[in-house]
Amino acid sequence: MISHLRCPPVSDVFRHRIRVRYGECDLQGVVFNANWLAYFDVVITELWRDRVGDYMDMIDRGVDMVVAEAGVRFRAPARFDDVVEFELRVARLGETSFSSSIDAKVDGRTVIEGAMRHVFVDAGTNSKCPIPGYVREGLQPLVAEEQPAGTR
Amino acid sequence: MISHLRCPPVSDVFRHRIRVRYGECDLQGVVFNANWLAYFDVVITELWRDRVGDYMDMIDRGVDMVVAEAGVRFRAPARFDDVVEFELRVARLGETSFSSSIDAKVDGRTVIEGAMRHVFVDAGTNSKCPIPGYVREGLQPLVAEEQPAGTR
Amino acid sequence: MISHLRCPPVSDVFRHRIRVRYGECDLQGVVFNANWLAYFDVVITELWRDRVGDYMDMIDRGVDMVVAEAGVRFRAPARFDDVVEFELRVARLGETSFSSSIDAKVDGRTVIEGAMRHVFVDAGTNSKCPIPGYVREGLQPLVAEEQPAGTR
Amino acid sequence: MISHLRCPPVSDVFRHRIRVRYGECDLQGVVFNANWLAYFDVVITELWRDRVGDYMDMIDRGVDMVVAEAGVRFRAPARFDDVVEFELRVARLGETSFSSSIDAKVDGRTVIEGAMRHVFVDAGTNSKCPIPGYVREGLQPLVAEEQPAGTR
Repeated sequence: MISHLRCPPVSDVFRHRIRVRYGECDLQGVVFNANWLAYFDVVITELWRDRVGDYMDMIDRGVDMVVAEAGVRFRAPARFDDVVEFELRVARLGETSFSSSIDAKVDGRTVIEGAMRHVFVDAGTNSKCPIPGYVREGLQPLVAEEQPAGTR
Repeated sequence: MISHLRCPPVSDVFRHRIRVRYGECDLQGVVFNANWLAYFDVVITELWRDRVGDYMDMIDRGVDMVVAEAGVRFRAPARFDDVVEFELRVARLGETSFSSSIDAKVDGRTVIEGAMRHVFVDAGTNSKCPIPGYVREGLQPLVAEEQPAGTR
Repeated sequence: MISHLRCPPVSDVFRHRIRVRYGECDLQGVVFNANWLAYFDVVITELWRDRVGDYMDMIDRGVDMVVAEAGVRFRAPARFDDVVEFELRVARLGETSFSSSIDAKVDGRTVIEGAMRHVFVDAGTNSKCPIPGYVREGLQPLVAEEQPAGTR
Repeated sequence: MISHLRCPPVSDVFRHRIRVRYGECDLQGVVFNANWLAYFDVVITELWRDRVGDYMDMIDRGVDMVVAEAGVRFRAPARFDDVVEFELRVARLGETSFSSSIDAKVDGRTVIEGAMRHVFVDAGTNSKCPIPGYVREGLQPLVAEEQPAGTR
């Protein structure tokens, strides 16, 4: 417990819930794997609304994002009508891109561990551009603190 | 057979096949109902390629289409890996819109009877516009002949 | 106004809201047409939760539903991030099937007028079965009252 | 040709083509990211048909697969009507799982680099099971040969 005092403050987390739709499940009775990336996209949209501002406003200002990488580890199934709780942390906030980890739980049990990397682009030309200041400011609190070596 | 001689010539039909994907099926083991409209959209794209020309070319020329109405009657299920045979007929070729009937069969058995109405619009303003001549020409052979009263 | 007094009571309506996801929109910047049927399916699920009970419970009791007919009239576009308000009324509550009208509005403006017919089936054999009593009871208040002839 | 004799045999590759559907593209005019996993699923289905046998037959024999991991690196966009050429190699053929790399090209240009890991399960209990012999036999030729150090 004492060692806790020396730990860096736990970073902020963005949470969002999505209820699984019937048409998102497959023959196996579970969420079809591709739909997890679609969920991640919703989580990013809601992250924007909550921490940065309306996503379309950013596009109107000339900045858009493209997904550069996405990965999912499937740990347990989620089923029709389950309420999935997503937790997003910013793993890295770079110059022109940011990486996030997106985990999903159902009833407290982890079902998915995901990761995405988004790159900011000029909405017109699609060439890389720096993360706008107000976006960086909104995402900063979600940057996951590095644990000091040895504590885990 | 003799009565056949007095019948109008049977209209041309556009045919296209789509194999049902795993992720398009739901818990009931059949194609999720919304996916039929997605299939219809593919059939329209392929109709264009076959009879009118590349769909994006039309857009580049400033003409686009929007769906005004769509209807589906579900007669029998189609399942994962089934090859669905679509038959499209033009029910009506108007000034600014056209109506099509799209039926689907699996192994010769009708699974779906569908109908759509598309309206042509100016790709910029989305206001109605006349069907371009070359489009009308391409669709004309598919206009379903009315059967004389009493023959069916 | 006086004639109103003789009118049957206005029927109950089921309402549900869905926010349009980015991935549900197409190149035209509007909800891809097939996704409206997917939305309708969500509305039906939520109708069950609100008025009938958990949908999976019904399946566990041996009763399921299949879509027999679906139709959509597209009146105006809905766009990414729009909150769509759905209103469902039961147009007809039959022996083994029920018909619903599902309309959708964005900011008070009608974007979609839809209709569906669901048939109840034995969850095992998929053969038609009567609407269970508790389901009928739940849906009954939503049955749209017929207007007396001449009032509209 | 002679140098060929000293080279490790180039491993076999499974190829499959998918044409991008209109409804699979988003506001940015490119394939919506989640749809790539849906494409990968189609590629796996077709891999089975080509090398192993009908996928549903395997399920009927009591063996199914679940996706354990999936990753995608987005290199360039694919657009509506593009024909995407997929190349699948088996990166690892284990006891109960296999890993594949799935790359996608449009007009010879790489658009996607993907990876998946599938685990075999008992179709009834969903517990891990060994890869059936006839499946292993079918996938074996696709196992990517390790290049000796220095040759590339």
